[in-house]
Amino acid sequence: MFFKFITAGESHGKALVAIVEGLPAGLEIDLEKINFELWRRQQGYGRGGRQKIEKDEIKILSGIRHGKTLGSPTCLIIENRDFVHWQEVMSSEKLDAEPKNSRIVKRPRPGHADLAGGQKFQTGDLRDILERASARETAARVACGAFAKQLLARFGIDIKSHIIKLGTIPEKPLIKTWEEISAIDENSPLRCADKEIENQMIELIDTAKAEGDTLGGIFEVVAKNVIVGLGSHTSWSEKLDGRFARAFMSIPAVKAIEIGTGVENAGKFGSEVHDEIVYRENAFQRTTNRAGGLEGGITNGEEIRVRGYMKPISTLRKPLKSVDIETKQEDLAAFERSDITAVPAAGVIGEAMLAIVLANSMREKFGGDSLSEMQANFESYKKNLNNY
Amino acid sequence: MFFKFITAGESHGKALVAIVEGLPAGLEIDLEKINFELWRRQQGYGRGGRQKIEKDEIKILSGIRHGKTLGSPTCLIIENRDFVHWQEVMSSEKLDAEPKNSRIVKRPRPGHADLAGGQKFQTGDLRDILERASARETAARVACGAFAKQLLARFGIDIKSHIIKLGTIPEKPLIKTWEEISAIDENSPLRCADKEIENQMIELIDTAKAEGDTLGGIFEVVAKNVIVGLGSHTSWSEKLDGRFARAFMSIPAVKAIEIGTGVENAGKFGSEVHDEIVYRENAFQRTTNRAGGLEGGITNGEEIRVRGYMKPISTLRKPLKSVDIETKQEDLAAFERSDITAVPAAGVIGEAMLAIVLANSMREKFGGDSLSEMQANFESYKKNLNNY
Amino acid sequence: MFFKFITAGESHGKALVAIVEGLPAGLEIDLEKINFELWRRQQGYGRGGRQKIEKDEIKILSGIRHGKTLGSPTCLIIENRDFVHWQEVMSSEKLDAEPKNSRIVKRPRPGHADLAGGQKFQTGDLRDILERASARETAARVACGAFAKQLLARFGIDIKSHIIKLGTIPEKPLIKTWEEISAIDENSPLRCADKEIENQMIELIDTAKAEGDTLGGIFEVVAKNVIVGLGSHTSWSEKLDGRFARAFMSIPAVKAIEIGTGVENAGKFGSEVHDEIVYRENAFQRTTNRAGGLEGGITNGEEIRVRGYMKPISTLRKPLKSVDIETKQEDLAAFERSDITAVPAAGVIGEAMLAIVLANSMREKFGGDSLSEMQANFESYKKNLNNY
Amino acid sequence: MFFKFITAGESHGKALVAIVEGLPAGLEIDLEKINFELWRRQQGYGRGGRQKIEKDEIKILSGIRHGKTLGSPTCLIIENRDFVHWQEVMSSEKLDAEPKNSRIVKRPRPGHADLAGGQKFQTGDLRDILERASARETAARVACGAFAKQLLARFGIDIKSHIIKLGTIPEKPLIKTWEEISAIDENSPLRCADKEIENQMIELIDTAKAEGDTLGGIFEVVAKNVIVGLGSHTSWSEKLDGRFARAFMSIPAVKAIEIGTGVENAGKFGSEVHDEIVYRENAFQRTTNRAGGLEGGITNGEEIRVRGYMKPISTLRKPLKSVDIETKQEDLAAFERSDITAVPAAGVIGEAMLAIVLANSMREKFGGDSLSEMQANFESYKKNLNNY
Repeated sequence: MFFKFITAGESHGKALVAIVEGLPAGLEIDLEKINFELWRRQQGYGRGGRQKIEKDEIKILSGIRHGKTLGSPTCLIIENRDFVHWQEVMSSEKLDAEPKNSRIVKRPRPGHADLAGGQKFQTGDLRDILERASARETAARVACGAFAKQLLARFGIDIKSHIIKLGTIPEKPLIKTWEEISAIDENSPLRCADKEIENQMIELIDTAKAEGDTLGGIFEVVAKNVIVGLGSHTSWSEKLDGRFARAFMSIPAVKAIEIGTGVENAGKFGSEVHDEIVYRENAFQRTTNRAGGLEGGITNGEEIRVRGYMKPISTLRKPLKSVDIETKQEDLAAFERSDITAVPAAGVIGEAMLAIVLANSMREKFGGDSLSEMQANFESYKKNLNNY
Repeated sequence: MFFKFITAGESHGKALVAIVEGLPAGLEIDLEKINFELWRRQQGYGRGGRQKIEKDEIKILSGIRHGKTLGSPTCLIIENRDFVHWQEVMSSEKLDAEPKNSRIVKRPRPGHADLAGGQKFQTGDLRDILERASARETAARVACGAFAKQLLARFGIDIKSHIIKLGTIPEKPLIKTWEEISAIDENSPLRCADKEIENQMIELIDTAKAEGDTLGGIFEVVAKNVIVGLGSHTSWSEKLDGRFARAFMSIPAVKAIEIGTGVENAGKFGSEVHDEIVYRENAFQRTTNRAGGLEGGITNGEEIRVRGYMKPISTLRKPLKSVDIETKQEDLAAFERSDITAVPAAGVIGEAMLAIVLANSMREKFGGDSLSEMQANFESYKKNLNNY
Repeated sequence: MFFKFITAGESHGKALVAIVEGLPAGLEIDLEKINFELWRRQQGYGRGGRQKIEKDEIKILSGIRHGKTLGSPTCLIIENRDFVHWQEVMSSEKLDAEPKNSRIVKRPRPGHADLAGGQKFQTGDLRDILERASARETAARVACGAFAKQLLARFGIDIKSHIIKLGTIPEKPLIKTWEEISAIDENSPLRCADKEIENQMIELIDTAKAEGDTLGGIFEVVAKNVIVGLGSHTSWSEKLDGRFARAFMSIPAVKAIEIGTGVENAGKFGSEVHDEIVYRENAFQRTTNRAGGLEGGITNGEEIRVRGYMKPISTLRKPLKSVDIETKQEDLAAFERSDITAVPAAGVIGEAMLAIVLANSMREKFGGDSLSEMQANFESYKKNLNNY
Repeated sequence: MFFKFITAGESHGKALVAIVEGLPAGLEIDLEKINFELWRRQQGYGRGGRQKIEKDEIKILSGIRHGKTLGSPTCLIIENRDFVHWQEVMSSEKLDAEPKNSRIVKRPRPGHADLAGGQKFQTGDLRDILERASARETAARVACGAFAKQLLARFGIDIKSHIIKLGTIPEKPLIKTWEEISAIDENSPLRCADKEIENQMIELIDTAKAEGDTLGGIFEVVAKNVIVGLGSHTSWSEKLDGRFARAFMSIPAVKAIEIGTGVENAGKFGSEVHDEIVYRENAFQRTTNRAGGLEGGITNGEEIRVRGYMKPISTLRKPLKSVDIETKQEDLAAFERSDITAVPAAGVIGEAMLAIVLANSMREKFGGDSLSEMQANFESYKKNLNNY
């Protein structure tokens, strides 16, 4: 069965929930590692107050028994600690009277789903839209991705992210090796592999903050030790690069995706771009990896490298121009507590989405219902690869 | 029923085939328009010999009667005229004897699916892979997209593409209005809205050709008159930007995707990026469209703008280094007839993929089994939008 | 967006959970009606002790605000009151020591997933299988179906079930009109429309109970006021009868499905079976409904009638022969608290599954994001039907 | 990749087409065996003239090279020989003038999709519906199923069908062993394992023919050597019995489905129904197989037995009452060339659908891209089963 997930939950509702399907039975799950991923998502210089209120932790409701997966759907829940202040506003029950502070939103924020969502669903309170469109939903995705990571780890796969540009700094995105990325301290302010650059980024964030403005940037996610042969060239919908692109573009505020050095490659000659093939230490290898580990929609054994381009946060303390949807009068956009920038968090979400897509393609190729069955199939294929 | 499509067919096999599902009944189909799209895909300065051999034309096998759709699956076929020279090599039947020129491929071409595909499917003749991985498959997609375009046209939607960068020219991607793009002559060599720039691009192609090298570039696809409210913010998999990203990244050689000016936006302040909302002529409007028509994964009524970054063609006449998969000796990569560049063609394929994703989301939102039912639902929603 | 649902949860775990997607925004939800359906599932003469422990009630975690759907995924949770006695046995955490009563299951029960599931997932404790294979999971389905019913009610559709055979009584399945079925008291012991027959059924249950045996039977689900034109003949996977069959066959213990009087019809002449067409009161009508409301996989406007054949409960107090999976010694099957019969409950589950399939096909045909949009599309189609 | 298929084509159009996806690479395909299955579908006492016109044969357009699968989508085509007489009526092109015999259908046939389809798709010529709703489409399914059978054969699985009731004969459906079913001559008139009964069936068909009437019946499909552990209990949609039910109910005219002896079992005590477990010859075994090889939605290693209940053919030479959709006058239903009965053919289609569902679940469990990889995974699991 394939690896699938679904999330539910509003930003200030009772809880975020997710159901993960397709984990093989018998996989040991370490909840601390999942909570650690949730913690990572909440870090980063330039984050707002919400991250201080919520210290996310998951509870397991199903699918795991005595520390191991059962093969059945795994339900996890992350309670919203802030809900206590939103009980009336976000109540699922009909209210007898309008709450004191109803927090109705009528002035859509440019860059958000507010206006288009309100029109689509024909609602007069844009909170009906923004509560679900909020990036808080990604906490549930990170938890699902953490399950995927624990599965992938059993096959030697490791996934990391780092920030390669924040706003205008540096001019050209950083290029860093796996070792350099691995060396980044988890407590670093921006998960950037270059300390000097990171300091400049911090200064830029301070400037933006002072001006009530926001920032975006570029993050890169890298997966190490991914086996040759995931994804397929046989149909457009089987191509793994397409699946990565969809998964990454679904991260709030991400508006461009790049595999390997795809943006730069478009401006070069073919002889400068393609990764030549050599045979060393009894294996096919590449001396470069501009393709980011994917050729023809198939993993080629090199590091998977996918980059997300994040636009600046859409909610500004110095609000943008908008229109009241009821009166049609021009007015400033509503303000909802928010961050100055969240690129490091987006990197963590990118790791989760990459892990989910990879876990799915591993399940697809190696089948099996228990971890041991899946592992045996993996080892058998690996042996074939060595003989190819 | 949703709009879906599937293609089959090898590059030098008998034919390409596609089945399109989800067209409403009663839609008039103009086959000449479909053949015109196929012709457009075959144009462009810098194309190789294959385009002269094949003059693609579709035949309809099902789903259309007396010029109108029936609502049943529509099968179309594009015969490969070149098959006559490949009958033995590509025969579906077992051969009694090895053909004179077996055209077995043992030296994988960097940048192609050849090596990773051969390892995945455990085949000793890489032709088993490259025949399906070939970009020729996109002819079938363009035909499917041409059906989607004819559906969308009934709802006022028009889709065009243009080239905004080829190799290094110009330094920054061109930014052109709908009117400028519409003015491009279909017989233009590169579908570029700036004649001066286009001449420079042609020179660059000549240079690459002289050196046995290849080129990539950036194309942009624009959809006009798309209604507010397609796609949804409610789940990661419903987001329309994610679906566009997947569809575009599945185009051969595309390695980066950008919505609106997503790459540039990542380097700016929020106050410079988000498209402010105004109310004019009894409608919500934007004075800019940096978001490329999508907010929160939902269309916002502005032009949809999606860009694809194409790497240089992987098959070089001056071949790259490779390894013989049998002998493991280093050797030059195999050569298979190819182009110098195909960015204009990729733009046409991009139009098709955009049309397909949009047609699907229109079917999803407006339902209906006949065109007239779908149109009535569309008009009714449009009226609601005007009253919002 | 289509109506979809997924459930999670083990029988003695913390809770059952479900996520429902595809409800249009703006639909009022009455939680009492959902809890009433859960209550109905727990009734029926011949049920065991579990139904007395659990009084199922849902909590809403997402997707509903101030009593109305938001259009986002709706998460509901049903806590297992019995979990308090199973905390160690069903703990998601690794245990430091073996619990006092570990309730490990080694003797698979014939008729259950126990043995095949244990072999598939390679587990030595069959509780890992039976906890999820338990019919308790259907409580979550009934809740999801109750959402579907509330949607369908807005389009005039009503769904009911009744028991037409229990064990050997009566010899031929009862045939009852909608009015007769509607007249059944919700507090009736077996939801049978014939009191005399029901008393005989009760006697049979008492006999079975006395002998430690179990019983099955046949239930029929009927949907009234379903519009012409749901489902489609155009592809095998679009046929609505196939979807009903899958949904019903997935109900635990159901081993045969019948649409209309499909079993009997197979033994008759064509002239005795097909429902002739007449035109009365300005509408196409049928004087009979042996087809159960479906022709060519499409609803034809008559009552939908689907029957499920349920085998006797697999867990017998007088256990069947089995084998210990560890020692391979023949032994009696394990006993897990269970019912004598649960056909009335299966009828309620059948209502839920029918509602879910219908809700999905209504969403597919009428599209829309808000209830009012969907309703407008429905009314517009209905007008067309009247003019046909 | 999973085993999937899609068909296209109208009954009197140019051709039937199908695309099969998910065959592993390197599988030898014997076209003669596929054509033999097509021939089998056309046999049976009581068939009409169409079967004499069409002698179905497939052509391969893609996915197979030198007799072996490539792993890419396999497109097959079956030309309609009768098309030569229907060129104008079924032309995909707009006609300049009405054809001499337009064969417009205005009097819907009870039991067919005609009326409900016409209303749904809002067409005034019911031929737009019946051409696709025709059972001729199943020729394409049988071809797809023949691919599935050739895959399954590599894992020891064999699939056969037989007729166990035709009209009223015999009173109770025949129960036959695998050996008895295997002994049926492929040239037998009705694929019935009891010659005496078969003669009575033939007499009944002659009677029906004489009276312009039609007949249905019951067929059973049996799969031998299916491994334990396909399908899953973990979610409603994973249950293999549900998938079989959907696949069978999608066969034209099938209105009831039974797994094992599911109809009869509903009327018995639990102690008489469930298949007790024994351990013999180092394996778990059952002494009976009333469950038809499935428990909890999972294969248990016994023969899979699925039965389809087919209603009598809907097109009668002595037509039923109907209404002209234009004039609304009562009239006799249209007549379209047809059979007296087609239960043996339905059995062959049932074999195909069973093969397709099984092939899909085998691909799901054992993964792999090449046949040899899939086989290695299968053998590895089988070894685990032996050690369970």
